[in-house]
Amino acid sequence: MALFVYKFGGTSVGSVERIKAVAEKIKKARDQGDDIIAVVSAMSGETNRLTSLASEMQHQPTHREMDVLLSTGEQVTMSLLCMALHDLDCPACSYTGAQVKILTDSVHTKARIREIDDENIKKDLKQGSVVVVAGFQGVDENGRITTLGRGGSDTTAVALAAVLKAEECHIYTDVDGVYTTDPRVEPKARRLDKITFEEMLEMASLGSKVLQIRSVEFAGKYNVALRVLSSFKEGNGTLITYEESEMERALISGIAFNRDEAKLTITGVPDLPGVASKILCPVADNNIEVDMIIQNIADDETTDFTFTVHRNDYQKTKAVLEGVCKDLGARHVTGDDSIVKISIVGVGMRSHAGIASTMFKVLADEGINIRMISTSEIKISVVVDEKYLELAVRALHKAFDLDKEED
Amino acid sequence: MALFVYKFGGTSVGSVERIKAVAEKIKKARDQGDDIIAVVSAMSGETNRLTSLASEMQHQPTHREMDVLLSTGEQVTMSLLCMALHDLDCPACSYTGAQVKILTDSVHTKARIREIDDENIKKDLKQGSVVVVAGFQGVDENGRITTLGRGGSDTTAVALAAVLKAEECHIYTDVDGVYTTDPRVEPKARRLDKITFEEMLEMASLGSKVLQIRSVEFAGKYNVALRVLSSFKEGNGTLITYEESEMERALISGIAFNRDEAKLTITGVPDLPGVASKILCPVADNNIEVDMIIQNIADDETTDFTFTVHRNDYQKTKAVLEGVCKDLGARHVTGDDSIVKISIVGVGMRSHAGIASTMFKVLADEGINIRMISTSEIKISVVVDEKYLELAVRALHKAFDLDKEED
Repeated sequence: MALFVYKFGGTSVGSVERIKAVAEKIKKARDQGDDIIAVVSAMSGETNRLTSLASEMQHQPTHREMDVLLSTGEQVTMSLLCMALHDLDCPACSYTGAQVKILTDSVHTKARIREIDDENIKKDLKQGSVVVVAGFQGVDENGRITTLGRGGSDTTAVALAAVLKAEECHIYTDVDGVYTTDPRVEPKARRLDKITFEEMLEMASLGSKVLQIRSVEFAGKYNVALRVLSSFKEGNGTLITYEESEMERALISGIAFNRDEAKLTITGVPDLPGVASKILCPVADNNIEVDMIIQNIADDETTDFTFTVHRNDYQKTKAVLEGVCKDLGARHVTGDDSIVKISIVGVGMRSHAGIASTMFKVLADEGINIRMISTSEIKISVVVDEKYLELAVRALHKAFDLDKEED
Repeated sequence: MALFVYKFGGTSVGSVERIKAVAEKIKKARDQGDDIIAVVSAMSGETNRLTSLASEMQHQPTHREMDVLLSTGEQVTMSLLCMALHDLDCPACSYTGAQVKILTDSVHTKARIREIDDENIKKDLKQGSVVVVAGFQGVDENGRITTLGRGGSDTTAVALAAVLKAEECHIYTDVDGVYTTDPRVEPKARRLDKITFEEMLEMASLGSKVLQIRSVEFAGKYNVALRVLSSFKEGNGTLITYEESEMERALISGIAFNRDEAKLTITGVPDLPGVASKILCPVADNNIEVDMIIQNIADDETTDFTFTVHRNDYQKTKAVLEGVCKDLGARHVTGDDSIVKISIVGVGMRSHAGIASTMFKVLADEGINIRMISTSEIKISVVVDEKYLELAVRALHKAFDLDKEED
């Protein structure tokens, strides 16, 4: 008998039927002798409904009241799930974040968990009850309702798993695990049985949005074994673990990509100290997030400076740079908003040389021009023209043997 | 500067526009220097939506989880109202029942308030903030969410007014006050400026359903001045107060009636001790609520026993009585489900003789046969054939000078 924390997102509890299916899943696990804590999100659509009501009341509602409003979403789900469990003769009781209590700081809409009181939950589990907890929410020391921000339900689940030392934390979603790459681009993409936390972090931040980065970091920090599974299909999903010796074998685990990129270059920048911040500060001041940054050393006393931003920010960034260009006495600003970023990720590349050159050769063989390169310990990213995305992903998927089953 | 508690029911906060109108009303009062606590219900329709979701999950959801579910309704309203107030630059903060905290017993779906902690509310009021409180809900000593049952928001408002010694507790509804009778039956019906608690209790229980009986009792007990007003129309509404000397003048305050009655008679009952309970116990055992009860002394050694029930229970009651009739060796069971009850209510009748005879004469003059009579200290009720309802109400309204303005 082991303790598991199950987390069900909005789609998994999006209708009466789906909540009933979730109840069946929990009941089955409990009948096998496991203790279950279920963390639930708001039913899909509910958060949008509430947000739209709020925006009709006030242009910019205070974060404090938004938290009060949005936290009702999970409260509805948790009570409905309890009812569905009761209907299966499965004892269950529900907890809001405040009832648990999940103590957070007072940064409304993106609070951080400080402490979890597990006393009542433990008592309920001991009495054979399933415990259903509202995800995404907590309470500050003044008794104010807080929410944890995007992906907050994942965070709730991981935090509970950490505090209660659960065997595993299951994140039920609409995909059945983490894939070597997006199956819509490469039909041969394969579900991974395991992936390390670090790889998962790189995959997530690069656009394979299965889990929220924050909950993955959190799980790594507190040594919680995370498993991503489908709410709708049977299967073992993908286990996210610490790096283990047996995994060193795999060179790369997956290929991530991001379509929403745009790149900008400012040329003929005087090569003086402090130039990078003079370019990037005005960008940041305009709330534009910068992704890759590359500075080339030029021949003369000037340099070229290139970076990527979200494609939606392209025009705004270009306007900012035109001003910077003038101020710095640089030559001119160029850009391209039809580029994509492709990354290969794997802890194996740490101990294996030549991964980068293999990647570049594969792309060259397909006639794909690399426009930017950036590397980290377990990731190599390249920027290429948008039109090459599918070709590049498939070629790399094959070259790194991702098509083949793990032995 | 005085403190007022305003309570807004589901219809008054039934849409974005109506919540905004409520905010305007509060802001106006605050601009005049008053402190306001607003108690809100769930938006109309919301409770039905949630109840129907619940019934899809489970045939008989536990009361505990129903409370968790339904209490989200007021929480949504309270945050939206705060946003609307903020939008008018009016400082406001929201409280759930648990946040206040409104401590109740643990009888889920019909909990009773034990204690209210007014510390935080007082602090907010002192800082110039409007305090918005979710009606209908509280929390038990284990931190479980409870609800107060039908009319619970009225009870919340009255309780807060009592604890915080508010000047008045305003109950905003879709009617603009308490009328001498139903204006749909007698167009000359007039809004009363004042009515006593006792009269209000008799009026409410007799079918003039403006306020929940429980909140009126509660207000009387804790000496809270209640005022019923319209959310949609300007006006002073009706003040519900203790009996005052100046009010002794009025003979009767209003005419209540109830269309949903049926009467049953069991004749030829042996006139022995314990016979009444032998008739009524089987009725109560079948969850049938009995209203008026009359026992006539007959000539011989038997008696007739008559009582009224809700019209929906007529057939069921009749079947029960057939059995009782056999057991008791009574003669037979008769009944009539096309009768109505009409009552005149007024504290004035205590000190004035002849009210009853006036009432009976008015009805006789109109050729209306009285089928049953029942009296209390401040009320006289008669049962008449349904077809005479409008005629009887109008004749009595006129006879007791209810058409005329109070001086």
